Parts: sequence; structure tokens; C-alpha cells
Amino acid sequence: MDIATIIGLVLGIGFTIWGIMSSGSLIDYYDFPSIVITLGGTVASVFISYSLSDIAKMGKVFQKTVLYKIDSANEIIADIINLANVARKEGLLSLEEYASKLDDEFLKKGIMLIVDGTDPELVRNILETELVFLEERHSQGQGILESMGSAAPAFGMLGTLIGLVNMLQKMDDPKAIGPNMSVALITTFYGSFLANVIFIPLALKLKLKSKSEVLIKELMIEGLLSIQAGENPRIIEEKLKTFIPPEMRTKVKNQGEKEVA
Amino acid sequence: MDIATIIGLVLGIGFTIWGIMSSGSLIDYYDFPSIVITLGGTVASVFISYSLSDIAKMGKVFQKTVLYKIDSANEIIADIINLANVARKEGLLSLEEYASKLDDEFLKKGIMLIVDGTDPELVRNILETELVFLEERHSQGQGILESMGSAAPAFGMLGTLIGLVNMLQKMDDPKAIGPNMSVALITTFYGSFLANVIFIPLALKLKLKSKSEVLIKELMIEGLLSIQAGENPRIIEEKLKTFIPPEMRTKVKNQGEKEVA
Amino acid sequence: MDIATIIGLVLGIGFTIWGIMSSGSLIDYYDFPSIVITLGGTVASVFISYSLSDIAKMGKVFQKTVLYKIDSANEIIADIINLANVARKEGLLSLEEYASKLDDEFLKKGIMLIVDGTDPELVRNILETELVFLEERHSQGQGILESMGSAAPAFGMLGTLIGLVNMLQKMDDPKAIGPNMSVALITTFYGSFLANVIFIPLALKLKLKSKSEVLIKELMIEGLLSIQAGENPRIIEEKLKTFIPPEMRTKVKNQGEKEVA
Amino acid sequence: MDIATIIGLVLGIGFTIWGIMSSGSLIDYYDFPSIVITLGGTVASVFISYSLSDIAKMGKVFQKTVLYKIDSANEIIADIINLANVARKEGLLSLEEYASKLDDEFLKKGIMLIVDGTDPELVRNILETELVFLEERHSQGQGILESMGSAAPAFGMLGTLIGLVNMLQKMDDPKAIGPNMSVALITTFYGSFLANVIFIPLALKLKLKSKSEVLIKELMIEGLLSIQAGENPRIIEEKLKTFIPPEMRTKVKNQGEKEVA
Amino acid sequence: MDIATIIGLVLGIGFTIWGIMSSGSLIDYYDFPSIVITLGGTVASVFISYSLSDIAKMGKVFQKTVLYKIDSANEIIADIINLANVARKEGLLSLEEYASKLDDEFLKKGIMLIVDGTDPELVRNILETELVFLEERHSQGQGILESMGSAAPAFGMLGTLIGLVNMLQKMDDPKAIGPNMSVALITTFYGSFLANVIFIPLALKLKLKSKSEVLIKELMIEGLLSIQAGENPRIIEEKLKTFIPPEMRTKVKNQGEKEVA
Repeated sequence: MDIATIIGLVLGIGFTIWGIMSSGSLIDYYDFPSIVITLGGTVASVFISYSLSDIAKMGKVFQKTVLYKIDSANEIIADIINLANVARKEGLLSLEEYASKLDDEFLKKGIMLIVDGTDPELVRNILETELVFLEERHSQGQGILESMGSAAPAFGMLGTLIGLVNMLQKMDDPKAIGPNMSVALITTFYGSFLANVIFIPLALKLKLKSKSEVLIKELMIEGLLSIQAGENPRIIEEKLKTFIPPEMRTKVKNQGEKEVA
Repeated sequence: MDIATIIGLVLGIGFTIWGIMSSGSLIDYYDFPSIVITLGGTVASVFISYSLSDIAKMGKVFQKTVLYKIDSANEIIADIINLANVARKEGLLSLEEYASKLDDEFLKKGIMLIVDGTDPELVRNILETELVFLEERHSQGQGILESMGSAAPAFGMLGTLIGLVNMLQKMDDPKAIGPNMSVALITTFYGSFLANVIFIPLALKLKLKSKSEVLIKELMIEGLLSIQAGENPRIIEEKLKTFIPPEMRTKVKNQGEKEVA
Repeated sequence: MDIATIIGLVLGIGFTIWGIMSSGSLIDYYDFPSIVITLGGTVASVFISYSLSDIAKMGKVFQKTVLYKIDSANEIIADIINLANVARKEGLLSLEEYASKLDDEFLKKGIMLIVDGTDPELVRNILETELVFLEERHSQGQGILESMGSAAPAFGMLGTLIGLVNMLQKMDDPKAIGPNMSVALITTFYGSFLANVIFIPLALKLKLKSKSEVLIKELMIEGLLSIQAGENPRIIEEKLKTFIPPEMRTKVKNQGEKEVA
Repeated sequence: MDIATIIGLVLGIGFTIWGIMSSGSLIDYYDFPSIVITLGGTVASVFISYSLSDIAKMGKVFQKTVLYKIDSANEIIADIINLANVARKEGLLSLEEYASKLDDEFLKKGIMLIVDGTDPELVRNILETELVFLEERHSQGQGILESMGSAAPAFGMLGTLIGLVNMLQKMDDPKAIGPNMSVALITTFYGSFLANVIFIPLALKLKLKSKSEVLIKELMIEGLLSIQAGENPRIIEEKLKTFIPPEMRTKVKNQGEKEVA
Repeated sequence: MDIATIIGLVLGIGFTIWGIMSSGSLIDYYDFPSIVITLGGTVASVFISYSLSDIAKMGKVFQKTVLYKIDSANEIIADIINLANVARKEGLLSLEEYASKLDDEFLKKGIMLIVDGTDPELVRNILETELVFLEERHSQGQGILESMGSAAPAFGMLGTLIGLVNMLQKMDDPKAIGPNMSVALITTFYGSFLANVIFIPLALKLKLKSKSEVLIKELMIEGLLSIQAGENPRIIEEKLKTFIPPEMRTKVKNQGEKEVA
């Protein structure tokens, strides 16, 4: 996982706890029925909307996307230029051997399609469809987190309404109003905390990571088709370098040259 | 219906009831006029916006979409490859016989168009238009549920406003304020409960199921046109397999081979 | 008007009145200054945004769209197939006579363009531009209703703020606080009632009706161009039938055959 | 300015003042610090986001768009058909003389491009780019008004928070609570009034006017290109008439004939 | 930085402080735990969503975009026409020498591609991809500011909930309720202030500046391709001038003529 995400989660939870303790006691914030309504209700609403297999897949998508370290674009470009050189010197068929050493399944699949002599149009078609479904799966994981981010405050409010209705029904002891209302507000606190510290930022994280991964894969498709078309490795480099922000580009060149040489 | 949806509904309703009972009594939450304003108002707003036939259709759409078990993509691909083999060996006309054994009306219709020798462009056109209208009907059902999801809290608030205005008009007995306000809040509770436990998650369910069904139908169109074009069953399989996430793909192959063999 | 819209309006207003009367008296809900601020302010904001002619047109659009009974797609298809048969047997020029018997202005105009020997590209162009502007006018009517739907609660809140500020300025008599606050809340009630029972559902109604009307007109354009191209009536029927949901389609065939025969 | 806009502003402000006076006194609504926070803060937020030149331009855009009377489409069509007749009889070059009599800068520029013998593709290109930037400028003016419409309630709430915090810090005199809270609410009132009576409706006005102006300009482009292509004036009329709603079209014909004759 | 942004920030902060001091004392608004929860929580949520390198880049993007003075479009057009004249007289290769004198990296890169004899299609491709990634980086910076703009009020509310829950737990001393509630509201104040005075307007600033910069770059691409195509400098000027609002255009001509002459 990105170190920033861990730092952020620790800080977000830490600041909240410190804020609570600076003027109250943490123990007042534990209320089991409130947890059941807020967190349980949020989970229940996800179950209503998504199928069990989607929810199960969500774990994998989350793990793969948020925890997985994306290969730097520079390394991928160096790999592709390497392959382009090989293809030029030894022919497309020789790529098969090199493909087996690659880590990335997507790149490997693309190479195998080229080696099989698949029509370029079909190669693009197959790889792009694959990419579309990858995005689809990512956006579903993100959708689940976003659903939770909007369900949590809603169930928080539902819990507070229940607390208020119950409290208002029996206002015998005026002294109990304060603490009762305090408990009623705790579900709203839970809902707001879960949404703003956990679900909403993680949904955004997933979205951003997915975007980077898709970009890298688009770069791969572009590179693979250029290799198949037998384009000059220097032109391929020029084309693929536009995928990287200028300030990171000089590094590519050095590394590229080193590896290609 | 997906088991997850049932579990989710049971959990969502259960947690709410348990939350109520942990600090109050369920009976305080029954107030007939509140039900009339919240649920009745929500239904009334749907009647204003939609025609009777749309509302009637909604039931069917809901049943067909949420309750219906979508055929696994793997099975459909196996069926299509099967048909492609038949078409290759015995000609397109021989498909008529096989078509009658298919469960899926959409696939059957596509086969019949092919057997009738319809122009490929027209086949695509007819099937895609059909798909557009299918999506249309789904999205209308979803629209009704979403309307209800936003009308319910609005009528809940309207009910609470009525309760508050009535209560404030006659504040003779300070002891009655608590219970009166409690009743006023109950419509807000109803609106929030109906929206967040029922309407919003079911609207999302409908949307997700509709998406899966449309995807399966797109896969069928792709497959049908490939059959008509007389493409190689192996290439068809390659093309259609991109519609399925990689981790589910190996199964297709095995099953495909078995059935085709 | 659709019977459902009338039922919905009666129910929505009825449930609200019944809700009020079940715990209070309707007379407390009449407050002239509140009506002026909420309804007057809503109307004023529409006047600021729209020109007088737009507002005047809105009445017509509303009447035409919500009150007008859309011809069933089945009848239109039967008409078009009828015309296609005539055109095939007696030539395109003979359509002029039949066109005069048609109710629909749009269809009639299309026929006249065909009879005049207008270029097919231009026919499509003219009819589609007309359709774009029809949608435009519909969406403006809808825009006015949506503006009212968001202005009403805003002016309701403005009225409540005025009521609260005035009340807080002179809190001499604690007994008057309740009724004063009650009056202050009435504008919020008005705004919420107008938006949720009247403006928002009617805006949605207009949108849905507009969509149906546009669909019918698109079906007409498709049919007219097929007639001009001299396509086979059976193929035209096949093409146009995709515009209708499958469960309603068998009726078309019967009726179509009857009329064509 | 459209008379409707003036009526609307007078009504909106009038109803609010009357509402205030019906149960309180207008003088209680004047609070200088509240004006500074709400209006000043709104203006400050616009300064942060927009450059000085954008803000200055906004005045012009507003004046040109909201105050300017758009030529009726009928007159523009009559003008174009007139020009088409001239071009047919006396050649494209003779248009130069007629162009100088036109009021509209955009139409004049188009004619000059035609007279200069510019390539039709380039004429369309230049005129459409111009139109894109016109829309751009309009939408920026609209953007400023919309920013103000969302900033005003936010600064209103900020002011109320300040008022509440200050009030709660020194609750020595319970009698002062009412009036103090009343003052605190006044900024919320200001923010809501400015947004709902002024900024939001005027932003919408600007949007609608911009749309009409762009439509007229699109009609001009269509007409100019038809003139350049030497199309028949009757066909041009037919094409351009589709830009106007049917109920307004008969007038065009009469007027067109009169002017062309 | 635009002077307007500085003025706006000074005014926004100044008005708020003045508003506070007009009825209270600034010191009551300093509460360290509240700052930690609101600002700390906002920063934490950004860390969860974005990677460290994105956050670091954000500083640069912000600096480059908001602080950087965009070259006036007029100057760029004059430069391009100058280059077009040189290319016409002395050939495309001679541009290399002139390119080195240009300030703008993007324009320089385009010239070098032309001098290298790159295919026009590829030139457009490379420059447009570069532009897409520039927009991408800008929109990410904007995304961070927008996240902060929506996180700040959320953490403000979270802090207020904590304050309320703590306060309600121990309502022994009724005199302490006022000040305690006052402190609880301060986090809401912080969140609202940060969002409305700082984050939201700066996010909008970034968006608007980015749009201007992209427009200038699009103008450059158009100009560069026209130079490569050997178009007439007068036609190039005509084409590029459409990118500038008419009222600013006469200046271009004068300046253009002066420089070109």
C-alpha cells in the first residue's frame, strides 16, 4: 500500500481520537447498538445492491489496485523499446522467448498475440476490450466504497433519529436528556467518521490508482502495436515518452539507452 | 433473487428493529398518519410522474431483472461456439433446428434473422435497437425506484413539518412536547428508512443487474455476427473471452472444449 | 391528461390534508404573507430567468405534452406500412392524397417532402432539425418547472428565516413563541409541499412524455425514409417493430395485417 | 433588459420586503457587519477565483447578453433570403455593398469572408470558432454569477456561525439571547436572499439568452454557407425555417415574401 | 500570482476577522484541538487518497499554474506569424535558429519536431498527447484542492459532533453550556472558512488558469501545423485570430504587422 495512505489513515484516526480525548473520554464513544445500526446498516445496504460474487471480487480488486505497486512507466517504456529492438533484429517470432521473462500478464498476452501473427486490428481490439473490463471491475470496487460512503452518514442519521424518538418518548428525568441525546448523536458521529476518514478517501484512492494502471496499459497497447508495425525504436520511444510528464522524462532516456544498448 | 439481496434486506431491517428495541419499544414507531403521509406521498408522486402502464411495467421489469438468474457468460460462449461449429459444418440454414433448443429469446431471434439470410448490417441494427429499448425499460424501472428514494425523505420531512406546526400551535402542556415531537420525527425516520434500506439500494441493484444483462446481450450480438461472417470458432472464442474477467476464463475453455467436442 | 397524473395529484394533496387534520386544524396552515413569500417568490424567480414569451409558451408546451394523448406506436407503424404499400403500388406521388387524411402534422409534413421529391438527405435533415427544436421547447418547459421546484423550498426557507428573525426580535411573551415559530415554519412547509407534490413530479412527467413523443417521431422519420427508399413493407415492419417492447409487438402484427390487407 | 427580468426582480424584492413588514420592521434587517461578511465575502471569493480582466469583462458580457435585444429569427431569415436572391442575380461580389447595411457584426463578417472568396470549409471553420469563443465568454460570465450564487449562502452561514459563537461566549443576560440570535440569523437571510433572488436567477437568465444568441448565430452560419453554395433561396428558407418553432413560422413566410419581392 | 487573487484572499480573511471583532473577540476563535481536527483531518484525507508524489507535484502544479503569468495570446500569434514568414522565405530548417530564442518550451519542442521533418500527423499526435497530460496534471492539482474543499466542512462537522457529545455527557453546570457549545461550533466555523475562503476559490482559480493555458497551447499546435503545411501567413493570422475575443483583436493586427514587417 502507498505509504501516504497508511500515514493518512493513522493521522485521520489519531487526530479524531486526540480531539475526543482533549475534552472528553474515549469510552463515551463506544456504544454497541450504535455500531450495529451504522456499520451494520451500511454493510446491509451493500448486500442489497451487489451480488455476493461482486462483494467477494471487491476484496481482490481493492488488494490488487490499492496495495499493488504500479511499475514505473519508465521501466515499461524501456522494456518495450528493448522488445522493439529484438523484433527488428531477430523477427517478431523471437519475441516469444523474451515474453516469458516479463512480469506483466497484460504485456505478455499482447506479445503472444503478436507472435501468433494475429491481425493488428484484432490485437488492438482484444487488448482494449480487456482494458475496458479491467476499468469496469475497478469502477465496481469504487462503486461499492462510494455506496458505503453515502450509506454510512444516512444510517448514522437513522440511528440518531431512533435515539431522539426513544428519548423524547420518556422525558421523565430532565437530567437524563443530556446523556441520552449524547448517545443519539454518536451514530451520526460514527457515520460521519466512517464516510470521511475511511470510505470516501479510499474510494478516491481506488479511482486514482485505477487511472494510473489504465494509463500504463494504454501505453503498453500503443507500444505493442508499434512493435508489430515494425516501427523504428527511436520513434516508438518518442511516442511513448509523451505519456510521461516532461520532468520525469530525462530519466527514461538514460535508462532506455542503457538497457537498449 | 440474489441471495445477497435477501440477506441485505433482512439485515438492514433487522439491525434497525434491534436498534429501536435496544433503547425503546417498537410500538412507539407505529403511527398510521405518518405512514400515510410518507409512503402514500411517495407513491402519489410516482403516480404524478409516470403513466399507469409504466408503473405496471415496472413490476415486470423488476421481477425479470432482479429475480431472474442471468446465464453465466461462460455457458453463453459455449453455446455460441457450438453454433459456430454447426454453422461451419452444416451451413447457416442448419442453425434453425438448433435455435429451437435455446432458452434465450434474444439469441434465438438473432439465429432466426441469420437463417432468414438477413443482411449482417440489418441484423446488427435490429438486435442493437432491441438492446437499446431493453436498457430503456430497465432504466425506467430504475428511475421509478430512484424517484421513490428521493421522494420518501422529502415526504418524511413534510410530515415532520406538519407535526411541528401542529405541536407548536398548542403548547399548553409542556409534558406533551416530548412525545409530540417524537411523533413528528417518526415521519422523518420512515422516509429515511424507506429511502436508505429499500429504494436506493434496490435502484442500484436494478442498475447493476441491467448492466450485466446488457453485457451478455452484447456478447451474443458479437457472437452472432461472427457466426454469420463464418469466422473460425477459435477466433470467436478468443474474441468473446475478452468479455469475461481473466480469472473466470480458464473455466470457459474447459467447458467450451467439452461441449464443442 | 394521464389518469395516473390526476390520481397522483389528488392522492398527494389528499394525504397531506388528511395528515394535517389528523392532529391539527387546516386553518392554521393558511397564512397569507407566507403564501406571498413562497409562491410569489418562486414565480418572481421564474420571471427573472425566463422571457415573457418563454413563460407564455410554457403553458402551451405543458398542455400539448402532458395533456395530449400520444398515438400508440402500433397505430403509427400500421399507418406507415399502409403508406409503404400504397407507395409501392401507386408510386410516391399518390401519397399526397393519403397524407391529407393523417392526423399527425409531423408525419404529414414528411409525406409532403417526399411527394415534392426532396432529396432523402434533406428530408432527414429537415425532420431531425424539427425534432431537435421540439425537444428544445419541451426541455425549456421542463426547465421552468425544475427552476420552480428548486426555488420553492429556497423561498420557503427565506420566509422561515424572516419569521424567526422577527420572532427573536421581540420575545417578550414566552407564550407567543410556540405559535410564532409555528407560523415561521409554515413557509418551509409550503415550499416543500409545492416542490415535492407539484413542481418536481410534473417536471419529471413532462420529461417522460417528451421522451415518448420524440421516440414516436424518430420512428416516423425512420419509416418515412424507408418509404422514400422504396423498401419492402415487411422489412420496414421488422425495422420499426424494434422500437416497441417485445410484449406489445404481437398486437402490431395482427393489426398491421388487418389494416394492410 | 427583458421586461420580465425587471418585473421579476421588482416582485422578488417587493414580496420579501412585504413579508418582512407584515410581521416585523425592515430596520431590524439592516446590520452593517452582516452585509460586509455576506456580500463582501462573496465578492472576495470571486476575486480569488477570477482575474481582474475576467471580472471586468463580466460586466460587458452581462450587459451585452442580458440587456441586448436579440433580433428575431424571422428577420434574420428574411435578411438571409434577401442576400441569397441578390447573390443569385448579381453574383457573390455584389453582396459587399449590401453587407455594409447589416447591423449584425457576425453576419457582416461572414459576408465579407464569402466576398473575399474564402474556401467554404474555412468560412465555416472561422465562424464556428468565433461562436465557440462567444459561448466561452458567456459561460464565464455565467460561471461568475453561479460562483456568487453558491458563495453567498456559504458566507451567510459563516456569518451566522460567528454570531452564534460570539453569543454563546457571553450568555450573561438571557434577555439578550433572542435579539443576538436574531442578528446572527440575518447573515443567513442575506446569503439566501442574494442567492435566490439575484445571483441564481440571473445566472440562468444569462444561460438562456446565450443559448438563443448562439442559435441565431448558427442559423446565420447555415444561411451563409447556403448562399456561398448558391443554393435556391426557397430551399434555404425551408432549411432555416426548421430553426423556428412551427407556430411562429407562418409569419416568416409572409414577411420573407414581402421583403424578397 | 494574479493581483486579484491576492486582493480576494486579503479581503476574504479581512472581512471575516472584522466580522468577528465587530461583536466578539478574536481570541475566542483560537482553539488548538479544533484546528487539529479540522485542518489535520483534511490533510489526512488527502494523504489517504493521493500518493506522496502526487501531493508533492501538487505544489509545483499550483505554483506553475496559479503564479505563472500566461503569455498574451497576441504575442504568441505574432511569434507564430513571424516564424511562418521565416519558414516561407528561408525554409523550414532555418526555424531551428529562431526556435532557440523562444521562451515557451512547448512551442520550442513543436518547432524542433518540424525541423526534424517529423510527419505532420505525428507532430499533432505528440503535441496533443503532451497537452492531454498537462491537463491531467492540472486537473489532479485541482482535484486535491476540491477534495480539501469538501473534506474541511466534513471534519468541521465531525469536530462539532465530538464537542456536542462531550458537552452533553457532563451537563452539570448549566452556565458552562454556552461556552462549551461555542467551542463545539468553532470547528464548523473553521471547516466552513477553509472551504469557502481558501480551498474552493483556489480550486476554481486553478481550473480557469489551466483552461487559458491549454487554449494558448492549442493555438500553438494550430499555428505550428499551419507553418509546417506552408500556409500563407495572412491565412494563419486569420485562423489564429479566431482564438481571441473580437475586442482584443485589433491590437493583434497592429502588433502583428509591426513585428512581421
